[in-house]
Amino acid sequence: MSYSAPHVRNAWYVASWEQDLEPATPFAITILGEPVVLYRSESGRLVALEDRCVHRLAPLSLGRCEGDRLRCMYHGLLFEPDGKVAEIPGQDLVPAKARVKSYPVTEKHSWIWVWMGDPERADEALIPPAIGFDDPDYILGRGQLDYEACAELIHDNLCDFSHLSYVHANSFGATEDWARTRPRVTPLERGVRFERWVPSQGGLRSRKGVTVDAWSSYDYLVPGILLMRGASYPEGTAKKLGMGAPPDLEGAVGVTFTSQAVTAMTEKTARYFFSWGPHRDHGDEELRDTLMGVAAMAFAEDKTMIEAQQRVISATPEPRVMPTSADKGVTLYQRLVEKLAREEARKAEAA
Amino acid sequence: MSYSAPHVRNAWYVASWEQDLEPATPFAITILGEPVVLYRSESGRLVALEDRCVHRLAPLSLGRCEGDRLRCMYHGLLFEPDGKVAEIPGQDLVPAKARVKSYPVTEKHSWIWVWMGDPERADEALIPPAIGFDDPDYILGRGQLDYEACAELIHDNLCDFSHLSYVHANSFGATEDWARTRPRVTPLERGVRFERWVPSQGGLRSRKGVTVDAWSSYDYLVPGILLMRGASYPEGTAKKLGMGAPPDLEGAVGVTFTSQAVTAMTEKTARYFFSWGPHRDHGDEELRDTLMGVAAMAFAEDKTMIEAQQRVISATPEPRVMPTSADKGVTLYQRLVEKLAREEARKAEAA
Amino acid sequence: MSYSAPHVRNAWYVASWEQDLEPATPFAITILGEPVVLYRSESGRLVALEDRCVHRLAPLSLGRCEGDRLRCMYHGLLFEPDGKVAEIPGQDLVPAKARVKSYPVTEKHSWIWVWMGDPERADEALIPPAIGFDDPDYILGRGQLDYEACAELIHDNLCDFSHLSYVHANSFGATEDWARTRPRVTPLERGVRFERWVPSQGGLRSRKGVTVDAWSSYDYLVPGILLMRGASYPEGTAKKLGMGAPPDLEGAVGVTFTSQAVTAMTEKTARYFFSWGPHRDHGDEELRDTLMGVAAMAFAEDKTMIEAQQRVISATPEPRVMPTSADKGVTLYQRLVEKLAREEARKAEAA
Repeated sequence: MSYSAPHVRNAWYVASWEQDLEPATPFAITILGEPVVLYRSESGRLVALEDRCVHRLAPLSLGRCEGDRLRCMYHGLLFEPDGKVAEIPGQDLVPAKARVKSYPVTEKHSWIWVWMGDPERADEALIPPAIGFDDPDYILGRGQLDYEACAELIHDNLCDFSHLSYVHANSFGATEDWARTRPRVTPLERGVRFERWVPSQGGLRSRKGVTVDAWSSYDYLVPGILLMRGASYPEGTAKKLGMGAPPDLEGAVGVTFTSQAVTAMTEKTARYFFSWGPHRDHGDEELRDTLMGVAAMAFAEDKTMIEAQQRVISATPEPRVMPTSADKGVTLYQRLVEKLAREEARKAEAA
Repeated sequence: MSYSAPHVRNAWYVASWEQDLEPATPFAITILGEPVVLYRSESGRLVALEDRCVHRLAPLSLGRCEGDRLRCMYHGLLFEPDGKVAEIPGQDLVPAKARVKSYPVTEKHSWIWVWMGDPERADEALIPPAIGFDDPDYILGRGQLDYEACAELIHDNLCDFSHLSYVHANSFGATEDWARTRPRVTPLERGVRFERWVPSQGGLRSRKGVTVDAWSSYDYLVPGILLMRGASYPEGTAKKLGMGAPPDLEGAVGVTFTSQAVTAMTEKTARYFFSWGPHRDHGDEELRDTLMGVAAMAFAEDKTMIEAQQRVISATPEPRVMPTSADKGVTLYQRLVEKLAREEARKAEAA
Repeated sequence: MSYSAPHVRNAWYVASWEQDLEPATPFAITILGEPVVLYRSESGRLVALEDRCVHRLAPLSLGRCEGDRLRCMYHGLLFEPDGKVAEIPGQDLVPAKARVKSYPVTEKHSWIWVWMGDPERADEALIPPAIGFDDPDYILGRGQLDYEACAELIHDNLCDFSHLSYVHANSFGATEDWARTRPRVTPLERGVRFERWVPSQGGLRSRKGVTVDAWSSYDYLVPGILLMRGASYPEGTAKKLGMGAPPDLEGAVGVTFTSQAVTAMTEKTARYFFSWGPHRDHGDEELRDTLMGVAAMAFAEDKTMIEAQQRVISATPEPRVMPTSADKGVTLYQRLVEKLAREEARKAEAA
C-alpha cells in the first residue's frame, strides 16, 4: 500500500514456484508492500487474495481452505475466490462491502504470477516467456533467495554484467572482459535487451575446459524478469561473425538458459527466484547440478554485495549515485519503469 | 509516559505473580510505557518505584535492596520506599526535588498489583476478585506469556469467544457452536459480563468424555482482568432452564475457575498472566495438570494469531476494522475504557 | 553524516588496534556516523577512505587492495589513496569529481588514529600520549568492546569514578571511599585531569594483598581518550604528603598504566578500546594477565549498566539528568566538548 519506489503495477509478479504451492494450503507473500495470500483449491483453482481479514485484520494465510473458499481462522469469516465474504458465523446478514481485494493470478512456466495492478487490464499475453520445467528442451534446476535489500538494487545488478568481473571472479570465473567491454543494449517495449560476445573464455560455461567464444543474450523485463540464453562457440566464431549475433544455435558447443525473477516485497526486502540449466543437446543432469552449484555460490556473492550496498545507502542521509558508461542498460530500464509508472498514474487519474 | 492507546490509569495492573518476587530482589516491568521496579524488602514491605534513577537514568532494578530502601548501583544514590532520595554518597545536601515516582502497590489473590494512576485515588476495593492460590476451593496451575502485540488486541480476543471455534478447535476441542451462538453480554461499572450456555459439548472440559451442557460466565474488567467460572451440567440442563443461568453449582458435573490478566507494557508488547484449575469437588491435581497442558497449547494458538494480526496492522497504513455481531462485548469494553479514560482526563484537568 | 550529539571533529579518533590491521586487507569502521575503510598497503602505506563507492554506494571495504590503491569489487572502480577514482573499467574518461573522501590517518602508541575533521588542521601533535606495546616500561594486555550505547554515556562513566564503589565492588574490590571522596579535577586545554588519593585500600591493585594508599591520576581527553597511571604506596603515604600528589614513583609499591579510547560509531553505538598492565619494575606477565581478567569482568559490568541506562534513556520521552557533586568532571568535559564544537562551527562558517 505504501511502496514508494517507482514501479509498474500493471504487470505479472512472480509469487512462488508452482511446485511450492501445496494443494489447499494457504501461502503468504508480500508484494509491493501488500500482503497476498495464495492458494490452490482442491479442485485446482488458483486464488490470490489480500492477506488481511476485513474484520480484524488477521492474516488469511493462517486460514483454512474449504473447497474453493478460504476461512479466516480467527473468527471464522469465509471468503469467496473473488474476495467477497460468503459467511460471518452467527450473523445472518453479510454487508455488501465485506470483501478483501482479489488479484488476477495464473501459473505458467513453473511460476505463479500475480497481477498487482488494475484487474481489468490483466493480460496473460504480458507474461514473460520464461522457460519452466515443462519445457522439453532444457534440463533445469531452481532456487530462490530472500534479500534484505530493495528490488531496485537487484534490477541494477542484473542490468549491468560488468560486475561479473569482480563479484563473480571466482564463482563464474569471469574475466575482466565483462567489465572492459560493453554489450549491445536495445530498448524493448517492456524491457531492455542485452547482447554480447565475450571471446576466448575458459571457465565454467565450457564443460570440457576448452576456450570458447561466449555469446549471451538476455531480456530484462518489467517487473524484474531476466530471461537469458548463453551459448558458447568455437574460439574465433565471434571474430568471424564480425561480433554480430550468431544466426542460430547451430555450431554451438554449449547452450544454457536461465529464467530469473525479482519480486519487490517491501521497501527493503525482495525475493529472487531463479532456474538454470543446459539445453538437452548440450548437457545432462550432471551439468545441471554443476551449474546450480555455481549459481548458489554466485548468487550468494551478489546478495552479500547488494545487502551491504543497501546498508550503506540506508545509512546515508542523501544518497547519490554517479553513473558510468556501464550503466546504459540500468538507466534505460529505470527510465522505462518511470515512464510506465507515469502512464499508469495518468490512466488512473483519467479513470 | 507515552502510551497512546486509550487506557485507564486509575486501576490496578498485575505486575507479577507474588511467587516470582524474591525477597530483597528488585524486579523490573514496564507498564503503560513506564519503567517500574518492584521489590519486597526483607521485612516484607512491598515497594514499587519508577525504574529510572533521578541522577543519570540508570535502572534501579539493577540496584541493591538495603533494608526497606533501594540503592542505585551506578553511583550509589539511595531511595526511600516513597521515592525520595535518602542519600547521595559524598554529598552532604540532598535536593528536596530529588525523588522518583512511587506507585501504590499491594498483593492479593497471588498477584502483585500496581496502581498506575493518581495515588490519592488508589482504592483496594477496586482490585478485581480474582482467585489465587490461597483459595481453598480451587486447585490451580499458573503461567504467563509475553506478547509482541498491543494489549488491546488481547482484550478484543478475550471479549469475543467466537474465536474458540477456529483458533482453539484442536486445543479446547471447541465446536462451531461458540461462533454460531452469542453470549448474553451485560455492561458492568468497571467491565463487561459474558454468560452463555453451549449445550451438548464433549471435549476437554468434561472429564469423563461424556457430553455435557457447558455454562460459562465471566467478567472482563479494567484494566484487562478476566475472571471466569466454567461449569458443566448433564445434557439437557440448558434447555430445562430455558437457556437461563443456573441458580448455583448444585448438579454441576464439572467446575473450573480461571483468572487472567493482560498488562499493557509498551505500545506493542503486553504480558499475559493466567491461572486455571478445577473446583476441589470436581477435580484434583491430575485434572489441573491436564488443564494446564491444554491452556499452554491454546494460549500459544492465541499468541500466534494475535502477533500475526499485530504484524498485519503495523504494516497497514490506515488499518480499519469491520465489526460483526460477535463484537458486541468487544465494543462495550472498548467504549467503557474510552469513557473511563475521558473521565480521568476531565478530573485531571479540573484538578 | 548525521551524528547529532555535540562532538569534536578536529581530533584523532581511534579506529583500530594496529595489530588488527592485516596487510592489504580492508577494514571497516563507522566513526561519527561516517563509514570509513582503512587499509595498510603492501608497501606499508596507511589509508583511510570514505567506505562508500562514488558509483553506486557499495562499501569499498568489500574491495581489493591493489598496491597502494583500493578497487571496489562491485563494478571495479579503482581508488587512489587520496580518494580520487583512478580507473573506471571500460570507460576512457574519469570525471574529475569522481572521488570519495580521504581521511588523515596515522598509527602511534599501537592505535590507528583517524582525523575526522578538516584535513588542513590535522596535527599529529594532538595525538594523546597513550602508552602502546612499543613502550619498554609497561607490560600490557589489550581488549575492546562494542557498546549498544552512545559514546557520551561512556565518557560520563569514565569522568566519574564514584561508580567504582557500586559497579565494580566485586571486580576491582573498590570500597565506598571512591564514592564518598572527590578527586581533584583540573581543566586541561583538550580534556580534564583527575587526581586523588584513596588511602588504605586492599583489593586487586595491591599484588601481595597488603593494604596500601592508592594514588591515581588520569587525563580524559577529546575525543574520548583516558590515560591513567595508578600507583600504590605504603599505607600512610597519602597522609604524610597532606593528600598532595606524590612527587614521583620512588617508593611506589605498585604501578600500572591504562590507555582507553571511546570511539563514537553511530548515535547509539560505540567501540571501546583498552590496554592495561604493570610497570616492568612492579609486575610481570602474570600480573598483566591477572589485571586483564579483572578488566574483562569490570568492563562487562560497565557495559551492562551503561547499555541498560541507554535503553531507559531511549524509552524516556524527555530524559533529564540531575547532576551531583560527583559530576564535576563530567560537566567540565561536556562543556569543553560543547565549546570546542562551537569553535569548529564558527571556523567552518567563517571559511
